[in-house]
Amino acid sequence: MTLDPDFSKNDGLLPVIVQSADDDKVLMLAYMNELAWHRTLETGKAHYWSRSRRKLWQKGEESGNVQTIREILLDCDLDTILLKVVQTGGAACHDGYESCFYRRYADGKLEVVGKRVFDPKEVYKK
Amino acid sequence: MTLDPDFSKNDGLLPVIVQSADDDKVLMLAYMNELAWHRTLETGKAHYWSRSRRKLWQKGEESGNVQTIREILLDCDLDTILLKVVQTGGAACHDGYESCFYRRYADGKLEVVGKRVFDPKEVYKK
Repeated sequence: MTLDPDFSKNDGLLPVIVQSADDDKVLMLAYMNELAWHRTLETGKAHYWSRSRRKLWQKGEESGNVQTIREILLDCDLDTILLKVVQTGGAACHDGYESCFYRRYADGKLEVVGKRVFDPKEVYKK
Repeated sequence: MTLDPDFSKNDGLLPVIVQSADDDKVLMLAYMNELAWHRTLETGKAHYWSRSRRKLWQKGEESGNVQTIREILLDCDLDTILLKVVQTGGAACHDGYESCFYRRYADGKLEVVGKRVFDPKEVYKK
């Protein structure tokens, strides 16, 4: 029985669902390669692979809003990872919202339903 | 402002996080193309694109365990979809568990923590 995520799938890049350990809110989706997986296990802080920047990153390395791992679950096919985390700063989204899923879709319209925690202009100076 | 998921990304295949509308448990991850998205909106039942079988499928078309849509949320980049659903039969996973994420990873070991609802041999006759 394979005990680790199967990084032979999806060109070595597996989707990671990130959920709040406090209230089970889904915060974001990111991707891990094997390096990000091991770095996460070693440090207890969520690390991902940025597909656009093509580099390893620690969530919160710029904003300070790191994610501390509470629990890791793997799916039946071992190709999706679910992290339960404590989100420092209360916001996972770079738009300043608690969750990246801050808009509800209904009848072709998007309605903001999420809570904004910070102003991105104040946090990301670059 | 684009109001729909951006199917110009990821070769037209977007990840979909499926969460229970009852208790916010994450049930599974699947993928939608534009066809699956529209079929889901039209019917109110979750439809996905099977990457392995390369075809549209309605969740539960074989087992009867369909997913009725309660809420749809889109992420900041419009390339991930979050569905809140009512899961008929109480099990989303083809292994018979409530959630596909029924195993916890710790110290290189997987521990079953999920609730088994049905025996797959009884449900999938093929």
